[in-house]
Amino acid sequence: MADKKNMVIAQSGGPSSAINASIAGAISRAMAAGEIGKVYGAVNGMQGFLDRKLISISDQITTSDDIDTLIHTPAQALGSSRYKIPKGVEGDAVFARILEILKEYDIGYFFYNGGNDSMDTVCRVANYFKEHGEDIVAVGIPKTIDNDLAETDHTPGFGSAARYVAASVAEVYLDTIVYPLPAVTIVEVMGRNAGWLTAASVLARDTGVPAPHLIYLPELPFDPDDFVARAAELIRKEGQIVVAVSEGIKYADGTYIADTGAAEDMFGHKTLGGVASALESLLKGKSGISGLKSRAIMFSTLQRAAAHYASATDLSESYECGRRAVEAALAGRSGVMITIQRESSEPYLIRYAEGALDNIANEEKTVPLEWISDGGTNVSQEMVDYLRPLVRGEAAETHVGGLPRFFRFDWTKTVGPGE
Amino acid sequence: MADKKNMVIAQSGGPSSAINASIAGAISRAMAAGEIGKVYGAVNGMQGFLDRKLISISDQITTSDDIDTLIHTPAQALGSSRYKIPKGVEGDAVFARILEILKEYDIGYFFYNGGNDSMDTVCRVANYFKEHGEDIVAVGIPKTIDNDLAETDHTPGFGSAARYVAASVAEVYLDTIVYPLPAVTIVEVMGRNAGWLTAASVLARDTGVPAPHLIYLPELPFDPDDFVARAAELIRKEGQIVVAVSEGIKYADGTYIADTGAAEDMFGHKTLGGVASALESLLKGKSGISGLKSRAIMFSTLQRAAAHYASATDLSESYECGRRAVEAALAGRSGVMITIQRESSEPYLIRYAEGALDNIANEEKTVPLEWISDGGTNVSQEMVDYLRPLVRGEAAETHVGGLPRFFRFDWTKTVGPGE
Repeated sequence: MADKKNMVIAQSGGPSSAINASIAGAISRAMAAGEIGKVYGAVNGMQGFLDRKLISISDQITTSDDIDTLIHTPAQALGSSRYKIPKGVEGDAVFARILEILKEYDIGYFFYNGGNDSMDTVCRVANYFKEHGEDIVAVGIPKTIDNDLAETDHTPGFGSAARYVAASVAEVYLDTIVYPLPAVTIVEVMGRNAGWLTAASVLARDTGVPAPHLIYLPELPFDPDDFVARAAELIRKEGQIVVAVSEGIKYADGTYIADTGAAEDMFGHKTLGGVASALESLLKGKSGISGLKSRAIMFSTLQRAAAHYASATDLSESYECGRRAVEAALAGRSGVMITIQRESSEPYLIRYAEGALDNIANEEKTVPLEWISDGGTNVSQEMVDYLRPLVRGEAAETHVGGLPRFFRFDWTKTVGPGE
Repeated sequence: MADKKNMVIAQSGGPSSAINASIAGAISRAMAAGEIGKVYGAVNGMQGFLDRKLISISDQITTSDDIDTLIHTPAQALGSSRYKIPKGVEGDAVFARILEILKEYDIGYFFYNGGNDSMDTVCRVANYFKEHGEDIVAVGIPKTIDNDLAETDHTPGFGSAARYVAASVAEVYLDTIVYPLPAVTIVEVMGRNAGWLTAASVLARDTGVPAPHLIYLPELPFDPDDFVARAAELIRKEGQIVVAVSEGIKYADGTYIADTGAAEDMFGHKTLGGVASALESLLKGKSGISGLKSRAIMFSTLQRAAAHYASATDLSESYECGRRAVEAALAGRSGVMITIQRESSEPYLIRYAEGALDNIANEEKTVPLEWISDGGTNVSQEMVDYLRPLVRGEAAETHVGGLPRFFRFDWTKTVGPGE
């Protein structure tokens, strides 16, 4: 690239509380050095890019305080999208349009920050540029609370969600035991196919509580009779227990447990009852424990947006992934995603590397079955050792008056080429 | 009182994340000075006391680190109870038994830490002692996330729950807006009759977000048609909105909205659908907005157990209420509850006082109707000014490895008189 090219960055997939640390890292690196011209952001991912919803980050981020605040702001500050580029001829037209917009804005560097689907998108974009001899690099920046991306030890966003889940499970346990009555609290954790985040509930035990007493991941089929037998025995023995369950657990026949909890609401809509409610009903109906107090808690979007309890380790790694994505791009490496490679868990040592997007796109890294223990109701010590370093460190938040401040881009201030 | 009497403390009602700061204050004050003999704790409130489930706090709390950890541990560290002393002859027998146990253990000071029902209990105990000329003092230490106790400006536990609700609503809003689709998130907040905690969601706006767009408190009847009309208009205008609603809102005829959301689960049990789900269904069915993305979030026990996001102001006031309860008892004042009197909101100045339990027991302080604005969908500036100081300050947590440590009494180590 002869002259100074501009860059564009966009975000996609589901929110996390560390995703903006990654764009903060990329933006800082791009703005600090002289190799890059303007820094554009596409609002609402690829969909927004195709609609030319480009804003000038160079104009909207003006102080280091903006960067600090952005790091601690949860959920895509540039918005997200679930858009997928179609295959075949239709897709070719989209790629041509992408190229057209990039050239209009004189962009030489394209960054996409997201999970599996997003890595597939940036992979295809990078491959298209290569095949067409275009001198534009496309680099992926990993993000997902599901921790299910291939080629990386773990994903930015996971550690913060894991920290929230672990602390919340411990707190919920202390709340569950206050009355001398048989009680069960079932907490439902995100992760449709990969159980990493549900597994992280195990770290609640590091706070000195015995919860969670049972942990169910989606990697193994769920046996309702075995669950009822184990839970009832534990309740009889302990009095009160907490069960952590992935939203994605299935019966042996492949149907989701969540579906069986479905009930019709007041308008006759079939609502997904949620796994936790389904298991709660199951226990109430079949445990044989009279007066069983039960509660189902869905961590819902709280677990992926709880920036107020982010892991400092996660935020700094997320930032670094963004920073290194810009360096990889400047070195001309396209079609790669920044990865984290673990050298050791204790002491915790990592190094950053790059993985080929061709090996990452559409792959899903689930929990190794040998890390699931006790007949599919617990996780192994290897899992605990793997998880512990990821939740460490309290993020220095940007609080005013006891509450966080958030950074918000003005999504309506779109700019044309050259602006 | 001639010789050095012992004391007992117990906790009751629903959990909060600041309730143990109060017993920490009482315990510290009692152990630091020489006026009190042994410090006993009754496990599971009055019910446990009557069952002689007394533990020796003097033996179980041995370091200042124990006190620090106790302050940051959520939910009654001594367990709770919903037991109410019966009225009439049956009640007299219970009071006689209370007195018998107190004398057995040579206890001269009785402390009860809880909400409305608990203050009724300690009030009746104090009155019984007075009527029978017993030289035993009984003092109440306030606690409730509902903030509905009379005679006090606010209650210990409220500020921490308020801080959690405000930050979580802001985070959930940022999560709600990432896709360019019409969306609504409805968050359900605790407070069956008093809307203070739901009102605290307004502080989310202090973080720079417009949420919550609508706030519904139980103090006014809920009009479903007006709700649908307002929410639909806001969604059409803003794209995505967040609604904060108290679990206790009712139709004009006095029935709970939560009941109308009831559905039958897979075992035919009628489950309370929750207000948030009921409103979600209502909007989906009647808003006329096609493709409306909706989500109902119940903060559930998270909001009362989230010690990881306690307000430092709340924790220090809770501690001080416990400390002053012991001082009131040592001065021989019985039948009182420690109260917090506000001198000014900005700067925030309070003083502590004592209220007669006769004026507090069974009273319920709800939100003044003049603090509810915009046709029952918002709160006034007076409410904002009232709330702001209560959520201030980040509690210095006792973290190890990124996760909290909790203090736990050994409830099984009960002691006999003289032990």
